[in-house]
Amino acid sequence: MEQKIKYVSDSLVVMTEMVLPNDTNTLGNLMGGRLLYWMDIVAAISAQKHSNSLVVTASVDNVSFQQPIKLGNVLILEARVTRVFNTSMEVFIEVFGEDIPNKTRFKSNSAFYTFVGVDKDSKPHIVPEIIPVSDIEKKMYSQALQRRQLRLVLSGRMSPSDATEIIGIFNNDQW
Amino acid sequence: MEQKIKYVSDSLVVMTEMVLPNDTNTLGNLMGGRLLYWMDIVAAISAQKHSNSLVVTASVDNVSFQQPIKLGNVLILEARVTRVFNTSMEVFIEVFGEDIPNKTRFKSNSAFYTFVGVDKDSKPHIVPEIIPVSDIEKKMYSQALQRRQLRLVLSGRMSPSDATEIIGIFNNDQW
Amino acid sequence: MEQKIKYVSDSLVVMTEMVLPNDTNTLGNLMGGRLLYWMDIVAAISAQKHSNSLVVTASVDNVSFQQPIKLGNVLILEARVTRVFNTSMEVFIEVFGEDIPNKTRFKSNSAFYTFVGVDKDSKPHIVPEIIPVSDIEKKMYSQALQRRQLRLVLSGRMSPSDATEIIGIFNNDQW
Amino acid sequence: MEQKIKYVSDSLVVMTEMVLPNDTNTLGNLMGGRLLYWMDIVAAISAQKHSNSLVVTASVDNVSFQQPIKLGNVLILEARVTRVFNTSMEVFIEVFGEDIPNKTRFKSNSAFYTFVGVDKDSKPHIVPEIIPVSDIEKKMYSQALQRRQLRLVLSGRMSPSDATEIIGIFNNDQW
Amino acid sequence: MEQKIKYVSDSLVVMTEMVLPNDTNTLGNLMGGRLLYWMDIVAAISAQKHSNSLVVTASVDNVSFQQPIKLGNVLILEARVTRVFNTSMEVFIEVFGEDIPNKTRFKSNSAFYTFVGVDKDSKPHIVPEIIPVSDIEKKMYSQALQRRQLRLVLSGRMSPSDATEIIGIFNNDQW
Amino acid sequence: MEQKIKYVSDSLVVMTEMVLPNDTNTLGNLMGGRLLYWMDIVAAISAQKHSNSLVVTASVDNVSFQQPIKLGNVLILEARVTRVFNTSMEVFIEVFGEDIPNKTRFKSNSAFYTFVGVDKDSKPHIVPEIIPVSDIEKKMYSQALQRRQLRLVLSGRMSPSDATEIIGIFNNDQW
Repeated sequence: MEQKIKYVSDSLVVMTEMVLPNDTNTLGNLMGGRLLYWMDIVAAISAQKHSNSLVVTASVDNVSFQQPIKLGNVLILEARVTRVFNTSMEVFIEVFGEDIPNKTRFKSNSAFYTFVGVDKDSKPHIVPEIIPVSDIEKKMYSQALQRRQLRLVLSGRMSPSDATEIIGIFNNDQW
Repeated sequence: MEQKIKYVSDSLVVMTEMVLPNDTNTLGNLMGGRLLYWMDIVAAISAQKHSNSLVVTASVDNVSFQQPIKLGNVLILEARVTRVFNTSMEVFIEVFGEDIPNKTRFKSNSAFYTFVGVDKDSKPHIVPEIIPVSDIEKKMYSQALQRRQLRLVLSGRMSPSDATEIIGIFNNDQW
Repeated sequence: MEQKIKYVSDSLVVMTEMVLPNDTNTLGNLMGGRLLYWMDIVAAISAQKHSNSLVVTASVDNVSFQQPIKLGNVLILEARVTRVFNTSMEVFIEVFGEDIPNKTRFKSNSAFYTFVGVDKDSKPHIVPEIIPVSDIEKKMYSQALQRRQLRLVLSGRMSPSDATEIIGIFNNDQW
Repeated sequence: MEQKIKYVSDSLVVMTEMVLPNDTNTLGNLMGGRLLYWMDIVAAISAQKHSNSLVVTASVDNVSFQQPIKLGNVLILEARVTRVFNTSMEVFIEVFGEDIPNKTRFKSNSAFYTFVGVDKDSKPHIVPEIIPVSDIEKKMYSQALQRRQLRLVLSGRMSPSDATEIIGIFNNDQW
Repeated sequence: MEQKIKYVSDSLVVMTEMVLPNDTNTLGNLMGGRLLYWMDIVAAISAQKHSNSLVVTASVDNVSFQQPIKLGNVLILEARVTRVFNTSMEVFIEVFGEDIPNKTRFKSNSAFYTFVGVDKDSKPHIVPEIIPVSDIEKKMYSQALQRRQLRLVLSGRMSPSDATEIIGIFNNDQW
Repeated sequence: MEQKIKYVSDSLVVMTEMVLPNDTNTLGNLMGGRLLYWMDIVAAISAQKHSNSLVVTASVDNVSFQQPIKLGNVLILEARVTRVFNTSMEVFIEVFGEDIPNKTRFKSNSAFYTFVGVDKDSKPHIVPEIIPVSDIEKKMYSQALQRRQLRLVLSGRMSPSDATEIIGIFNNDQW
């Protein structure tokens, strides 16, 4: 695969879903697990678009759910790649909800998923670099280092004492 | 709801799933999102058992996926409540995979999900305390404070400078 | 419901779907019926957005499927309202396919679905007017009359001799 | 494949479905897209029976939905091949609904789907001729020419000026 | 509900299903549990048709599966009520399989399911009598007594010593 | 495959399911067919564990459903192999229901399913012997002979006059 440089906006994927009965719990609210499933699919497509290859989910960062989403609500999921680390891609997903008959739209939640680009034999391969352009893209690109170290520490693949970037998390309100 | 004290082991839930075609991606591997969905269901049942009430998913901590799970593999998910914080419960989920015809069994991954106990009108209510008994239960109970502070910081509900417990994470290899 | 005037672009809905095993037939191709199902959902959301109300499917115009869509392909469905007729809305849906690892993108097909705005008791209500702005929006708006007459004739609700606009179809290559 | 002549009645397929929660919208009515999906499956089986081969959906003619179908209703779908055009088959589908506890049965709607007979490599092949026997079979067989021209014009594969048969539509109340 | 007498043939329901990927196991064969699910639905509709009421599954008699059913095969399920016992109905289901491209049709299996007619509050009610007409209907009607006693013995609701009819099973090759 | 001797407890599989909207009928109760489907999966996994091979469902013995299971209830299914007959295994499944918010737990039902161990080409193979240890395991092992004869008679593969063990059924209240 050629090492072509690509932009964040090239990886944007928009997915819209209507909350159907089997997506809900006894209270008639969307189950958290269904939303995590949809976020995985939209993020995987975004990572596929950036890497022009198959991908596998490597990790999910902390996700928190603020408000209930009801049966019949519409969800809009937007995913884009924020940074590349050799064979892996960090993808940012934002989720918005709409109760259309009641004309309300709300931010539901957001999350970072990480994917690895693989070939047909599931072997990881180097993924093209990504160029952040806007201020927000540059900020997410830069902070991706901290999130990566936190991810490595939390999954036991980096010693906390080596996570020199993480201290930045605790001086930063953007989280 | 009476404030009865309950044990960690009372909340144990075991779920077994077979990986079917629609759970897999083009590579024939289980999609990460499907696993996150199953983990949400088993953890929700565990939180229901502890609180004897309906529950809603409040958050998911960092989850990382180590190895591919194939079509036809069997997954065993075990969930138990580790600690209660007023209206919320932290649930620990461990996932094991088995390729039965090949006699291999492997640890797939683990995660912490958080749930809030609610009544029929989705109003949160106080959840009974939980008593850790074994050493591992006590350790998870104790470390839950750190995980909670990290969760609050990451979701923007606590200032990093107030997260006095988190520093412990970086002196601890159990993560 | 107030009779506010709205634009075509206000009703745009973008949906992205990955073709999973259960969406395919024995040849590993997407089943036509699954695509018709997704087109109905994206179009219904578009009609909901325009009318700010619940909607029911009233009809589907002729749909033709040009090329096979394979397992693992990604579909992008774009829907927008083209014209309003009292209580009903015509929605135009375009479907694009992508085989991302092979870097091919193709127009799959397009169709017109018609929806009726209804209240909670399934009673139809007047839907706000729509204002076409661009040339293509104006053209689709204008030709909607012909499509409507054809629809009425084909469903037996208009005598062919009254369908004075339809003859235009046969002088028009845009179909 | 031998060019054996077959009868319309040989291709009859009857499918019965119960409307379950996930088939319905917020109003508790069957979603139009789910019905289009079922019609595609029953019609594909009918085309398979006639051609004794795999088939792919080529097109769907105008479908209109008259009345709501409720959760718990039973649908009966009947499909049969009406005419063959070299490699393609036109299939007529009639849909009836029943609210059994209320002892009501109603005609829901009907449609024509077109399929192409293909081999294991998705290559189209000649399909056996069909012999209409009853008056209604003969009429549908004869009118299939007009529907085919309309289909070709609507999908841009025939110039309206060549559609010499279509004018018949506008002198014919059977549509 | 009026006590109208009805015929066996009034309760006939025919269901056709195509075996899709998610219905199959790792060998590409239909899972037995999916077939048991479809048999329950077709039999429930048959019992609904006879009783013109809601029904609940009361029991399933011994079912044996003779030969594998493959991905892409078509199943035809035929159900009819064989006898009524106050509030319950015995339904006989026959399942046929077709591998259409290979022109093979085979008897897959058969079974007896039992349903109870209930009202909206799940309270059982008396179901109309059924009149067997053909020889096979009469035979099934007559042998239903033996099957019922066996069912009651096997579920522990009848003492074996009271099952005076069952001995007939062991003198009868029709089973 | 080596002929290793294994214990009943080695084959224990526990599955937990939450009743979701699409699992229920119009009354909001779990459909019998869905339960039969889950029982097939848990029992197949148990038979896989015992035989360390792929398996296919051979038969289901009489199952009766005592009480309704409601939307939102949790089901616990426990399966274990009771006896081996050359290439086939009898599996016993017990199903318990819980209405957690109402703190009620109930025995739902139980059943015997039979599976055949097969290789990748669907060819049956000899399955390892099983050793019953506890009194209840020994009793189920011993009575398995009677159940097997009844199964063979009911499926027409054994003449009733050869079923010398079955008479025991009618002297035995354990059924």
